[in-house]
Amino acid sequence: MRRFVIGRGRNFLNRSHQQNLLSSSSSHCQSRFLSSTSVIDSPSSSSMAPTSSPAITVDSLNPKVLKCEYAVRGEIVSIAQRLQQELQTNPGSHSFDEILSCNIGNPQSLGQQPITFFREVLALCDHPSILDRSETQGLFSADSIERAWQILDQIPGRATGAYSHSQGIKGLRDTIAAGIEARDGFPADPNDIFLTDGASPAVHMMMQLLIRSENDGILCPIPQYPLYSASIALHGGTLVPYYLDEATGWGLETSEVKKQLEAAKAKGITVRALVVINPGNPTGQVLAEENQRAIVDFCKKEGLVLLADEVYQENVYVPEKKFHSFKKVSRSMGYGEKDISLVSFQSVSKGYYGECGKRGGYMEVTGFSPEVREQIYKVASVNLCSNISGQILASLVMSPPKTLEDAFNSLEGITCNKAEGAMYLFPRIQLPEKAIKAAEAEKTVPDAFYCRRLLNATGIVLVPGSGFGQVPGTWHFRCTILPQEDKIPAIVTRLTDFHKSFMDKFRN
Amino acid sequence: MRRFVIGRGRNFLNRSHQQNLLSSSSSHCQSRFLSSTSVIDSPSSSSMAPTSSPAITVDSLNPKVLKCEYAVRGEIVSIAQRLQQELQTNPGSHSFDEILSCNIGNPQSLGQQPITFFREVLALCDHPSILDRSETQGLFSADSIERAWQILDQIPGRATGAYSHSQGIKGLRDTIAAGIEARDGFPADPNDIFLTDGASPAVHMMMQLLIRSENDGILCPIPQYPLYSASIALHGGTLVPYYLDEATGWGLETSEVKKQLEAAKAKGITVRALVVINPGNPTGQVLAEENQRAIVDFCKKEGLVLLADEVYQENVYVPEKKFHSFKKVSRSMGYGEKDISLVSFQSVSKGYYGECGKRGGYMEVTGFSPEVREQIYKVASVNLCSNISGQILASLVMSPPKTLEDAFNSLEGITCNKAEGAMYLFPRIQLPEKAIKAAEAEKTVPDAFYCRRLLNATGIVLVPGSGFGQVPGTWHFRCTILPQEDKIPAIVTRLTDFHKSFMDKFRN
Repeated sequence: MRRFVIGRGRNFLNRSHQQNLLSSSSSHCQSRFLSSTSVIDSPSSSSMAPTSSPAITVDSLNPKVLKCEYAVRGEIVSIAQRLQQELQTNPGSHSFDEILSCNIGNPQSLGQQPITFFREVLALCDHPSILDRSETQGLFSADSIERAWQILDQIPGRATGAYSHSQGIKGLRDTIAAGIEARDGFPADPNDIFLTDGASPAVHMMMQLLIRSENDGILCPIPQYPLYSASIALHGGTLVPYYLDEATGWGLETSEVKKQLEAAKAKGITVRALVVINPGNPTGQVLAEENQRAIVDFCKKEGLVLLADEVYQENVYVPEKKFHSFKKVSRSMGYGEKDISLVSFQSVSKGYYGECGKRGGYMEVTGFSPEVREQIYKVASVNLCSNISGQILASLVMSPPKTLEDAFNSLEGITCNKAEGAMYLFPRIQLPEKAIKAAEAEKTVPDAFYCRRLLNATGIVLVPGSGFGQVPGTWHFRCTILPQEDKIPAIVTRLTDFHKSFMDKFRN
Repeated sequence: MRRFVIGRGRNFLNRSHQQNLLSSSSSHCQSRFLSSTSVIDSPSSSSMAPTSSPAITVDSLNPKVLKCEYAVRGEIVSIAQRLQQELQTNPGSHSFDEILSCNIGNPQSLGQQPITFFREVLALCDHPSILDRSETQGLFSADSIERAWQILDQIPGRATGAYSHSQGIKGLRDTIAAGIEARDGFPADPNDIFLTDGASPAVHMMMQLLIRSENDGILCPIPQYPLYSASIALHGGTLVPYYLDEATGWGLETSEVKKQLEAAKAKGITVRALVVINPGNPTGQVLAEENQRAIVDFCKKEGLVLLADEVYQENVYVPEKKFHSFKKVSRSMGYGEKDISLVSFQSVSKGYYGECGKRGGYMEVTGFSPEVREQIYKVASVNLCSNISGQILASLVMSPPKTLEDAFNSLEGITCNKAEGAMYLFPRIQLPEKAIKAAEAEKTVPDAFYCRRLLNATGIVLVPGSGFGQVPGTWHFRCTILPQEDKIPAIVTRLTDFHKSFMDKFRN
């Protein structure tokens, strides 16, 4: 490591200063090179012993800051870091030989590898000039090169180092909105998306908007991820706790929430919003859909903003539970923009991607007036925009590369079993009555009718299912999974476009 | 672009809902794909016409948010975006054929290319698995590969996707502190560095800490970059303006500042800090060092925290001005931790690097008590950490690749003229009296004495200056600039280490 000798500084000093600075600089060198391998955080203290600045003491700081607590990086962490240093400098000094960090959701610090495709795309967007080089084809997958080009084409001037729109790059928001729509089955508007440096800044933004004084309360689950308590304290509001029921797997009972709401009102608190963390942190529960509907109804009835922390949506481990976004639940109940104010938070830090350090995330904001949205936009614009790599990652997370199987399963009327072996997919297509009649009029078997039209429109060659035999009244086609990796996106696109127009034409 | 058909959503709905959603989703598609090429920002409005949410109206938002203004992305920008769209859809509709964005400091949106070395390092740190591949040697410079390895070795587990220490990765802070020291000639402590997503979050953090109520004031230059006014408003404080003098090149007169301070005090405002933007935004002035000393003395005397926005430190265009950090100025006046509370803000968004979208930056915090520093750390920890790419970029900006010439110039007692041609550097070395006497005792010319010791310690072969002739009493050596690019870092390191121990031994 290069050391920079403070040569030039001498010109400014007399000799006695020099001596003082030299000795303090060597102690700086000492402290500077201590333990750079620690994975655990702790407050760094300056190695020079500072005495109180005359002007600012801890007592004269903003009391909201003093009140705020964030235990995830608190005292235990400091002890852990000290223990780790002791283990390094003095092996065998404890009855254990390693520190096992089970304190924060930081997957990649514990050996989880990032998703190769995501990192390939990020690297290419960081240094787009290598996209034209032949060596790049050997180093990066065809998919990642294609996705990088797609993303770069959405960025004005392909300038990945420029500030973007304050809500994030428009094309990336389009992708995210499409991903939300694919996930939920309900439309999402890219103009409702605000890309942020992780989910935390988005939470702060909403707290800042909603809290006018300590008379404003925010309902929070207990136990909760302490970003909420910290943020409410920092913004001068009141946390109104509602207790999750440990006996019933940390269930959320609206009767409990109602009880806490009424108690707060009786104390003169105006409760403005309800925070729900699903899947739960620290509790790990996944809400049942029925429970979610009760929550949505509750917020609608009581006029509360529903703040849905959904960052663990890709971490569901039990077959009997499934993640349903609160947006999907609300829309499936027939509730729209006029009925419920809903903010959904998502992040790239969790899930199978675990990209905590990249600081990517967004909030999807629905059910607010244009005037309120303008204020949200204004607050977002003061910090210009979130980091571009995080924005790109958010779009990748919400729209990961699709397999052919995924593509088929996303088409109207088509379901496809997993290919566990061989070289084929054999999707089933539910052909509308109109299409079946049109096929009969052309004296063609319905699945061959479909395949012929597909071929003539797109050049894609499949084999009609009737060639293999199938349960009468069902229709299939066989598609190989063999095409070159770089051809698959084109196949998916053309197939999807064809299928949509086929269904538009023949839908009952 | 793949389109995701909302196939699965049908399972949740009856037919009438389907019709409504289909028609709104196609209008969504329309609005979604409008103009993704705009470089200019404007508030996006949802294409669905939302009516007021019953709960939250603009009047019931936090009044501090309503009060806050940020004109850099205000009305003019909205008009500009509209005009740009008109030019795209209807060429010739105006008397100009392009929008010329001269509104924001966003260099890469106007064609400025990023620094290749920086982007190479970022790409390699995004996707470190390619470092072992042979194709990588052909695609990336040796310097960037070496620097990427160096950085990865400073990150626990080489996990560039993990959350880091809340102040930023320790090794990167070491590099930044070393860079500050090289720039200023005074020591910097990595524990004083807080890496943030651009400089703006750091400014917000300080405002949050310092402002208790509207009775707390912050002195700001008028004209100022409106982050300050916005942040003060958001945190409920009072902006106390001091006017820069346009007639004298936007000079900062401490008499004016004093006058405004007294006026504020008379109104019952406790003024807590002084913001200085140097070089100035929007004014473009660079303060004279003498002016800076007056400001430092003023802050010390009045017990004000000096908030030094120094993000344009690499943008100085006139030979008669030079950037001096307020830290350097303070330390050169003999003021230390006990004398002045100083926060210096730096960013990767400006300078010759212009990496606005990467959101990298830091604040260097000196002159506060340990208790206050703990609170600063706590606030930083609530948002976990800043984005890793931005952290890496900040370290690169503060420690760019050094030429051999830079390396020589940074050594104690050595100065080196620029190599304008040929293949050599001919640095001058001021040998201490002790070294000259030791050379004489060995019957060796002093510069040969130095070169011989260097060779024996490091294997580096130079030519003593006495071989070429030099002004009597001066000593030089000749060094070629020919070694392989990948050898130069090792040469610099070994030379630097040797020189330091030589000077430690022989210094007078």
